[in-house]
Amino acid sequence: MNRFLTAALAAMVSLTALADEGMWTFDNPPRAAIAAKYGVTLDDAWLDRVQGATVRLEGGCTGSFISAAGLILTNHHCAEDCIAQNSTAGNDFNAAGYLATDRKQELRCQEEAVSVLVGTEDVTAKVAAATAGLGADEVVAARRKVLTGLEQACEEASAKTKGGPLKCERLTLYQGGQYWLYKYRRYDDVRLVFAPERDIAAFGGDPDNFQFPRWCLDMSILRAYEDGKPAQTPDHLRFDWDGADPGDPVFVSGHPGNTDRLLTVAQLETQRTTFMPFWLLRFAELRGRLLQFSKTSPEAQRTAEAFLNIIENSIKVRRKQFDALLDPALFEAVGTAEKSLRDAVAANPALASSAGAWQDIEIAQRTWRDMLVPYIFIENGAAFNSTLYGYARDLVRAAADRTKPNESRLAEYTEARLPALQQNLQAAAPVYPDFEVVRLSFSLERMREWLGPDNPLVRKVFGNDTPDALANRLIRQSALADPAARIALYAGGQAAIDASQDPMIRLAASVDPTARALRKRYEEQVEGPVQRGQEAIAKARFAVNGASDYPDATFTLRLSYGAMKGWKEKGEDVRPWTELGRAFERATGQMPFRIPDRWLAAKDRLDITTRANFTTDNDIVGGNSGSPMLSTKGEIVGLAFDGNIHSISGSYWFDERMNRSIGVHPALIRTALEKVYDGKALLDEIDADR
Amino acid sequence: MNRFLTAALAAMVSLTALADEGMWTFDNPPRAAIAAKYGVTLDDAWLDRVQGATVRLEGGCTGSFISAAGLILTNHHCAEDCIAQNSTAGNDFNAAGYLATDRKQELRCQEEAVSVLVGTEDVTAKVAAATAGLGADEVVAARRKVLTGLEQACEEASAKTKGGPLKCERLTLYQGGQYWLYKYRRYDDVRLVFAPERDIAAFGGDPDNFQFPRWCLDMSILRAYEDGKPAQTPDHLRFDWDGADPGDPVFVSGHPGNTDRLLTVAQLETQRTTFMPFWLLRFAELRGRLLQFSKTSPEAQRTAEAFLNIIENSIKVRRKQFDALLDPALFEAVGTAEKSLRDAVAANPALASSAGAWQDIEIAQRTWRDMLVPYIFIENGAAFNSTLYGYARDLVRAAADRTKPNESRLAEYTEARLPALQQNLQAAAPVYPDFEVVRLSFSLERMREWLGPDNPLVRKVFGNDTPDALANRLIRQSALADPAARIALYAGGQAAIDASQDPMIRLAASVDPTARALRKRYEEQVEGPVQRGQEAIAKARFAVNGASDYPDATFTLRLSYGAMKGWKEKGEDVRPWTELGRAFERATGQMPFRIPDRWLAAKDRLDITTRANFTTDNDIVGGNSGSPMLSTKGEIVGLAFDGNIHSISGSYWFDERMNRSIGVHPALIRTALEKVYDGKALLDEIDADR
Repeated sequence: MNRFLTAALAAMVSLTALADEGMWTFDNPPRAAIAAKYGVTLDDAWLDRVQGATVRLEGGCTGSFISAAGLILTNHHCAEDCIAQNSTAGNDFNAAGYLATDRKQELRCQEEAVSVLVGTEDVTAKVAAATAGLGADEVVAARRKVLTGLEQACEEASAKTKGGPLKCERLTLYQGGQYWLYKYRRYDDVRLVFAPERDIAAFGGDPDNFQFPRWCLDMSILRAYEDGKPAQTPDHLRFDWDGADPGDPVFVSGHPGNTDRLLTVAQLETQRTTFMPFWLLRFAELRGRLLQFSKTSPEAQRTAEAFLNIIENSIKVRRKQFDALLDPALFEAVGTAEKSLRDAVAANPALASSAGAWQDIEIAQRTWRDMLVPYIFIENGAAFNSTLYGYARDLVRAAADRTKPNESRLAEYTEARLPALQQNLQAAAPVYPDFEVVRLSFSLERMREWLGPDNPLVRKVFGNDTPDALANRLIRQSALADPAARIALYAGGQAAIDASQDPMIRLAASVDPTARALRKRYEEQVEGPVQRGQEAIAKARFAVNGASDYPDATFTLRLSYGAMKGWKEKGEDVRPWTELGRAFERATGQMPFRIPDRWLAAKDRLDITTRANFTTDNDIVGGNSGSPMLSTKGEIVGLAFDGNIHSISGSYWFDERMNRSIGVHPALIRTALEKVYDGKALLDEIDADR
Repeated sequence: MNRFLTAALAAMVSLTALADEGMWTFDNPPRAAIAAKYGVTLDDAWLDRVQGATVRLEGGCTGSFISAAGLILTNHHCAEDCIAQNSTAGNDFNAAGYLATDRKQELRCQEEAVSVLVGTEDVTAKVAAATAGLGADEVVAARRKVLTGLEQACEEASAKTKGGPLKCERLTLYQGGQYWLYKYRRYDDVRLVFAPERDIAAFGGDPDNFQFPRWCLDMSILRAYEDGKPAQTPDHLRFDWDGADPGDPVFVSGHPGNTDRLLTVAQLETQRTTFMPFWLLRFAELRGRLLQFSKTSPEAQRTAEAFLNIIENSIKVRRKQFDALLDPALFEAVGTAEKSLRDAVAANPALASSAGAWQDIEIAQRTWRDMLVPYIFIENGAAFNSTLYGYARDLVRAAADRTKPNESRLAEYTEARLPALQQNLQAAAPVYPDFEVVRLSFSLERMREWLGPDNPLVRKVFGNDTPDALANRLIRQSALADPAARIALYAGGQAAIDASQDPMIRLAASVDPTARALRKRYEEQVEGPVQRGQEAIAKARFAVNGASDYPDATFTLRLSYGAMKGWKEKGEDVRPWTELGRAFERATGQMPFRIPDRWLAAKDRLDITTRANFTTDNDIVGGNSGSPMLSTKGEIVGLAFDGNIHSISGSYWFDERMNRSIGVHPALIRTALEKVYDGKALLDEIDADR
């Protein structure tokens, strides 16, 4: 425990300690700390080039341009949905792998889009002006209004300029300490170029997930298209095929999804007592249902696979996050840091307006704990776990909100968001009814359990049905699996929704009033007071600590620094790389320890000492999957795909001694393309400008 | 939170507060408190008669004799296994109900036995003498030796006396403050006489479990046999068919299974951080697997039903226990009480030997947290969740231990335990291979996940198999579903085990060395120091508080007192009884809200104001299921079958304002037997001595 306590106190009290900690925005990189520790000075050109080559996969990952014609390197697990959606019962590319032998064979990822950050604007002062003097119950709506207006103005302006139009997205940093507009160039047309077999991409499967040593070729190659042609991407990265050596500095550029390092004790308490147990129980059961469903036929297995992988990964993450929350040392460390900041605030009359912030947040958290379960079931839609319900809810809500002024809509249905929504509605992503019924029946049953059979909405939804009967009726009688039906409803607006007899539309419409009421209560009694409190705390923190902190992760562009490094596990040194040969020794021939035939056949041609995976002490988190790992020269020395098991507690604090990132070594990528797959043309394109 | 804090502080600081709290041994009932609060004096005759009529169902419940010829009243859910084992694919008595029209039709419960407590002996001094001066690592073996010897001597002596032979069982009370021998008359031949349909017995199913209002006829009637004839049971209870009125005193006699009200902070910390999350995640997934399996065919549903009901009930219990553990107020209350006792010990030189106890327990808990997961998987057998593995492990271990002196064996294989083991081995309880494979595949897969694919035992067990392939091979190639095969192996002893090629026997044999090593380490480094520490704390507690405490529940005979009473839920009064008519209104026609046809047909003959279920503030817990709820005159005014949702935190503390027991009202039992089922003969037997 003391180990964590020390590390955490260091982390909480001074976030700019000497540890390789932090997910830094590109406008505020810790240049001095990097120079002091690694003797490397990152100049603006380096940062600009890396920023321009790093892409955000809107599905939740990172990638990087690796050729001048839009090739994108990312993880296999980041492309798994796309691969599955392009597969059919007889032709499963997750199982068999895929290589487009020419550009015509590159397969469209129906639901994917990628974005490159091309500009940022600090709008903190504008938000502050628009919300000054408002009560906590009004502040959410006022802030939404000003930010929606700013987004809209930014997009309209960008359409008239060279390089436009851009997507402009609001962003909250430092828990409300700063508000920004981030401006992206978006590529809506993304295609699959190459994917190895799932068995080598995820060798070791769920048992090995978050473990090291590892031997995964967790890579895929996509290509961004513009106007039906490969995008021109002069800002791309080159490979250093030799990779890094132990001790070499390594930089990771990417989009870490979420961390909670700046939460108050009361907010962490909500996670520990309410959110995590609820989440884990729900998904553990869903995992069991889907695993059992997968055994009923190969088709069931195929259709459930991608979703199941996400659930299994998430369970592992949440479990370890929960372990961190259950560790009394975490609360002791956060409590100590919180007290020290509160003491500093109390001693400084200039910060008097921040003094009540912690208490305000605590009161809001009590409300939140009381309403969290119904909120997640009803407003978040956890009661209706199905793709078709997701469509139905979007259609119902968009129809209603499109009749309102842009600034009064739910954030998901503002003008800036509608293009992505339309892309999603018209995507020809297959829907599998049996799989949908399993998920929906499960979630309906759990809603009834947690909210109780006498809850008014439960009664309204269920009538006299069983969860199975209801799920079957909803899924099998709905037409929403057809993109044309969805687009027709979207185009028809409120009148089409009102006239629709589609049972899923009717369900979503009947749930909506309760859901919106919960949302309103949440915004007024939870989100508003919490945001207001967080802004006040952020203000105090800047005043006390200066501007040398990094913000929590928000799935926006960040830089992390570190070095190739192992760690000590129970007193034993873990070597920071693995070699290919061990994977062959470890294979059992059975999933998830099966080596694909193509690799077995190629074995004699391969150098078994080829480095396979390696570790660094970069501070990264989910969302960084697919991130380029870069040398001082800005060349790719690895492809981030995972962290070790200790890294998961990085949601709450960073322990340099234990937290490690795991990457695919470039030597394995080269070996795969050169000696196992017929990847010569791809390699030529990648290495074209050498 | 303050509500709980206050209640808990009261509970912890002085366990003899005025609340209707406590599960009291019959040798130490709180006569004064009962007389003071309810004006009732329980005399020895009352206690003796109730003790003689209360039976323990060895499967984990309570019952009571209700006729002179061995009729036993208990819950439906306590007989569910027996009912399922007597059912077949075409003849499902859980679905259809069962009524034996004459004694020949009474169906043997293969795995059930009932016991009546007929004598007790305090052996604390003998244990203390045998363990004096030993180190913590030796104390478990020494205590096992003396207690095994005492049990054996008691049984041998009882065989020579009138009313013998008896079963003599060791018992630890007050966490080691007292050691006892409890002497039971056991009935190994128990038969099913009557069970209503599951749909009315468990009306509302899992959604309503632990809820109130309720409308469940959760009853069944068994009969104890001796030498093939109905047992003679002159000590039986009579019904007061009118039941109790609000405010009337109610006593519950039964066998509460387990509470943890005397644990130290360090022990609770183990439950909160390690045991509960592990347990809940595991069983939530198993629930999902079994629910999904149940949908594959009516036979799958039938074979999984009883097991699934137990899991769903347990999940609900554990979830609420976990909520209690996550409530900071619990740790504050227990910590405060612990500190106050430690301060008292520090101030009293006579208690100096107790001063280090808390620290010793804390050190042992750290070891326990580190080894808990492998221990549960390997030594507890959670990795091999299957009935056949249970048989195999018993056979392998019994063969080895029967060659050892009685006092050196594992407690489960001492002479006193062998008859029950043999009954279990020869019971013709059906084994369902598909169902077994689901459980075993699941548990193997989770062992591999939690212990890691490179764990030596995991490698040994798995080889190159998948969990599914391994589970199928083990279950389908094993002969242990056949009682004759089991008995032959048991009779053949170690030689038969060594010669057996049964894959389940071979698995159990290959696991045994690792399992025994874990057990040894646990006894020496965890159990020994903890027991030693608990004994010291118990000594201190007796010295400081006097002898007016009650011990934690241990599935032995206890008395609780209280009154028929509702409670306030979110400011609303909950009426302490329900009426039959509401069940008909609430029925949807679909499980679990389906009313059986027999009841629908009888509806016009029924008085819809008949009281159905009711609540009291008795302090009971799982194991009390089936307990008689008694009036001051010692007549049955209810049949305990559940607690409200708040009662689950009773594992750690008792809150009189919220915790309620739920019982079946006698009026519903009478109505059922008289007007719905053809139960006149049964009623005549029950009322024979009126």
